[in-house]
Amino acid sequence: MSEIKDLKKLCIHSITTKPLAFEDACTRYAKLGVQGISIWRDAVSKLDGESVKKILKKNNLNPVSYVRGGFFPSADQAKREAAIKDNINMLQEASEMEIPMLVLVCGSDQRQSLELSRKQIKQGIESILPAAQKYGVKLAIEPLHPMYADTRSAITSLKQANDLAEYFHSDLVGVAVDVYHLWFDDDLENQIKRCGANNNLYAYHICDWKVPTEDMLLDRGLMGEGCIPLKRIRSWVEKAGFSGYNEVEIFSNRLWEGDQNEFLNKIIHAYLHNS
Amino acid sequence: MSEIKDLKKLCIHSITTKPLAFEDACTRYAKLGVQGISIWRDAVSKLDGESVKKILKKNNLNPVSYVRGGFFPSADQAKREAAIKDNINMLQEASEMEIPMLVLVCGSDQRQSLELSRKQIKQGIESILPAAQKYGVKLAIEPLHPMYADTRSAITSLKQANDLAEYFHSDLVGVAVDVYHLWFDDDLENQIKRCGANNNLYAYHICDWKVPTEDMLLDRGLMGEGCIPLKRIRSWVEKAGFSGYNEVEIFSNRLWEGDQNEFLNKIIHAYLHNS
Repeated sequence: MSEIKDLKKLCIHSITTKPLAFEDACTRYAKLGVQGISIWRDAVSKLDGESVKKILKKNNLNPVSYVRGGFFPSADQAKREAAIKDNINMLQEASEMEIPMLVLVCGSDQRQSLELSRKQIKQGIESILPAAQKYGVKLAIEPLHPMYADTRSAITSLKQANDLAEYFHSDLVGVAVDVYHLWFDDDLENQIKRCGANNNLYAYHICDWKVPTEDMLLDRGLMGEGCIPLKRIRSWVEKAGFSGYNEVEIFSNRLWEGDQNEFLNKIIHAYLHNS
Repeated sequence: MSEIKDLKKLCIHSITTKPLAFEDACTRYAKLGVQGISIWRDAVSKLDGESVKKILKKNNLNPVSYVRGGFFPSADQAKREAAIKDNINMLQEASEMEIPMLVLVCGSDQRQSLELSRKQIKQGIESILPAAQKYGVKLAIEPLHPMYADTRSAITSLKQANDLAEYFHSDLVGVAVDVYHLWFDDDLENQIKRCGANNNLYAYHICDWKVPTEDMLLDRGLMGEGCIPLKRIRSWVEKAGFSGYNEVEIFSNRLWEGDQNEFLNKIIHAYLHNS
């Protein structure tokens, strides 16, 4: 396994430092040598595309992903249609900010079967693909941990995400691999290999699984704080041909409560030593 | 899908009504027409085998499973050895109470890889199999939800449990299918079929997945309160040849806080209508 030697591939998701306003976050990331940022929609909801591009340029930050589209399934047709419209809006926004990729948290509706939700996810991606082409923005299907199968994603394994991406056979549809959702899968190495071999490995997200995990959504750990074999999984991802950013995506009430400069310093250290 | 017409196949895990002492629980179950009980070790820790048998006989209750053995993996050899010894003790206890089966929550140690934990699980089962033979008690490998992969089970899918059970090729090693841990798996129908075809489908546990789930361990729902397609999964289990008890196993702070007679009435209703 190769060690991480510098920050060239480090990207941070804006939500990781949720308490910081977007421009403040960008300034602080840049000061530490971070070169990539994945942008959550909420963080830039009050800015137009030009302003975002200016802030990024000033701080020498590359936009990596726009987060998060998807949420296609619903038992209500009107909601499914609204989701498609909203995803198309996000593709336009991404294009205006020159963000090359939209992450899809595919969605799930507990009022219907997972099979039906999966069908609606496929239909949803099908419906927004022309807009993805028009705006030149890639779509990254992110499989989520099975504990989110009720409301967040009916796609709960890398195998399913691979199947879905391969179905579209498009250079605009791929997969985002997030260690938090997949670390326990005994087929992970093999599915990462498959993902790379099909040119579908679009994104790699890191954090850690805390023991114990005290909140199902907002208690992710900093790399090294938990039990995910991060170096090992990164070696699989790199072996599969991935050469993009390592995106730090941490939702944590605990870490959001503390000083965000200290937290950022810890992220840099954890990135260089525990990822 | 066939409807459940009576209580003949209803079994309740003693922990489901945790506030009740064992004999009290047995009396109340029997009064409602329940015929099976799965016994958690804690519930009978102060009783000898003869006393337990007497209580069961008096209430016309069949013991179904003894819960829970396993927890084989550890980075410490002494702990692994202690776990094997403890499992052998549980097999003897089960035999003394004439409980035909020990449920294995296989275990996991976050200090080591899941692969190593899986290897130690295999070795653990291998080590206790002679005792299982001696005491005539079956071993049911229970795959757990991946959210428990850090400390409770490195076996997180029915496929893995099937692989493991088939490896032993013994009429004493099979699988316990719990809907809570497996409902989201897109390969579930197929793996249940495989489990049955290999005569490894030893137990079927039911409850529901609440939306939202507020505690990772102690917020299970009563059948019908959540989003698990219980009738559909039961139809797969029955089609796979299973004719044993439907075991109600609910851990819930919320339900434990209320009146346990009311809760039991709700279980009966949910069993007949939503399972």
